[in-house]
Amino acid sequence: MQDRGTAVPSGVPADAGIDIGGTKIAALIVDERGTVLARGSAPAPAREGGAAMADAAAALVTGLAAEAGVSLRAAGVGAAGVVDHATGTIRAASEMFVDWVGFPLGDELSDRLGVPVRIENDVNAFLLGEAAGRADRDVLGVMLGTGVGGALIVDGDLRHGPHGAAGEIGHTPGYSDLRCTCGQTGHLETLASGTSIGARYGERTGDVLNSSGVAERARAGDADAIAVFRDAGRALALACASAATLLDIPLAIVGGGVAHAWDLLAPAVDEALRTDAPITGIPLRVIPAEKGGDAVALGAIESARRARAVVAY
Amino acid sequence: MQDRGTAVPSGVPADAGIDIGGTKIAALIVDERGTVLARGSAPAPAREGGAAMADAAAALVTGLAAEAGVSLRAAGVGAAGVVDHATGTIRAASEMFVDWVGFPLGDELSDRLGVPVRIENDVNAFLLGEAAGRADRDVLGVMLGTGVGGALIVDGDLRHGPHGAAGEIGHTPGYSDLRCTCGQTGHLETLASGTSIGARYGERTGDVLNSSGVAERARAGDADAIAVFRDAGRALALACASAATLLDIPLAIVGGGVAHAWDLLAPAVDEALRTDAPITGIPLRVIPAEKGGDAVALGAIESARRARAVVAY
Repeated sequence: MQDRGTAVPSGVPADAGIDIGGTKIAALIVDERGTVLARGSAPAPAREGGAAMADAAAALVTGLAAEAGVSLRAAGVGAAGVVDHATGTIRAASEMFVDWVGFPLGDELSDRLGVPVRIENDVNAFLLGEAAGRADRDVLGVMLGTGVGGALIVDGDLRHGPHGAAGEIGHTPGYSDLRCTCGQTGHLETLASGTSIGARYGERTGDVLNSSGVAERARAGDADAIAVFRDAGRALALACASAATLLDIPLAIVGGGVAHAWDLLAPAVDEALRTDAPITGIPLRVIPAEKGGDAVALGAIESARRARAVVAY
Repeated sequence: MQDRGTAVPSGVPADAGIDIGGTKIAALIVDERGTVLARGSAPAPAREGGAAMADAAAALVTGLAAEAGVSLRAAGVGAAGVVDHATGTIRAASEMFVDWVGFPLGDELSDRLGVPVRIENDVNAFLLGEAAGRADRDVLGVMLGTGVGGALIVDGDLRHGPHGAAGEIGHTPGYSDLRCTCGQTGHLETLASGTSIGARYGERTGDVLNSSGVAERARAGDADAIAVFRDAGRALALACASAATLLDIPLAIVGGGVAHAWDLLAPAVDEALRTDAPITGIPLRVIPAEKGGDAVALGAIESARRARAVVAY
């Protein structure tokens, strides 16, 4: 060992993961071994514009890094909307995000934090976070939230596609004769989103509940609520089996609020995987997400680390 | 230039592509620029076993190479069945191929031809052949034959998948309530294979015809025949749109005997692509194959060339 004199490192090296949604910004600080050193959240000022969002995210991360006593090396962001990960800008997002489309989020955050920043779509980040630590190199991610999102890891890497649009399993057809939010018919989202679960229960009973409310009713034995979750589980499994048949992907990880009712989805998922297994003979597993609210931020860090492994900075 | 003395090259360097089916073996000799120097075919002795098949393929190729006056550098094979391209063996095939599963086709052909041999599934080879020369790096291939096969080029490379089973779009569900040859329900193959086109026309009319016969009737104005092709075209387009939505793949190339009736499929394909376009906004093109009977052999050569670019030999 050399005597290093009086030089004192400013802190152990660590990375930040940021999950930017429409109402909340959540962040993690993680060291090289994957240990979470700090965790926090702040309101997302989505209606105040991109600069306000970048300010809020940077303040949150800077505070967490100071709290953990670390020196940041890089940050990753999982953001709602269509993301151009190459330039770090948002290509499309819902109307609740003001001045967000075209905002150079990556550069703006990098300026504020003084480290390289990688931007990724939040569903892609979710899947990277959930898949991290697994040996699987081919994984489908399905996010059952307000709508149904999806992501793909193919041969170990996120599949973005030539238009950055890969993964939209929620809008693949063949699962019902219902009208989808997108205007088309029969998409997975018509049965398996939180919105559709509430709506379908409402059509059967006249009661207006969100999907958590429908789940409570199902657990209390309500036949209509059980049927709505059964339809959602069956459609989910068929969509995963279809993707597995097309792509030879043996694992699907399902997250989002609706997946919290995995107990209600699982019977129909398991039955559909028996009756409609991929004919390729692949033993498809469809499992619930395991990393809870941390998955997007953890995946954002993974994305930043992978970008650093490819592009020296 | 050095004086090379009396050494005379045995011929210009060229590669062989071999399309091995259940009834016929077809082969091409192609030079470095892609020019076809020789083309031929021979009966496939599928019932006589793997060695007889290798003998027949090697004799065909050796004869064509002599005819063209070339020196072979490598050969590629497109073979029916599930292929282990890493070892050059057949993993699974129909019963008409005797002593074919497990036969080390790559090694056996390599011994006979004296050059490296790459084995690929015939639908994968078809897609490589059709995609060769195109700028597209993400392409779906659909083969409408006795059944419905498929293949994927993702980020410029064939997608094999961890079990070598990728591409089975014919057995993705959601297109009908009919029983599939595999025992499941609603697969693309129940509407779009040659077998199903003949069967569906037979159910409507009592007439037993193959898909070419149904196509003739459709061109003569037979409403039942037109309807059967319309259903096939619509299901084909929906399956391509579903794959494009999941994968961000903007081009599908459709081959096989049924695709010869593209005039009958196209109206329903075009209509479905208008009404059920990928919600990602990708301008999906679904087009018929253009290289006819040469596609598999050309793709097999492409596969051999790509293997050589990766593994020095």
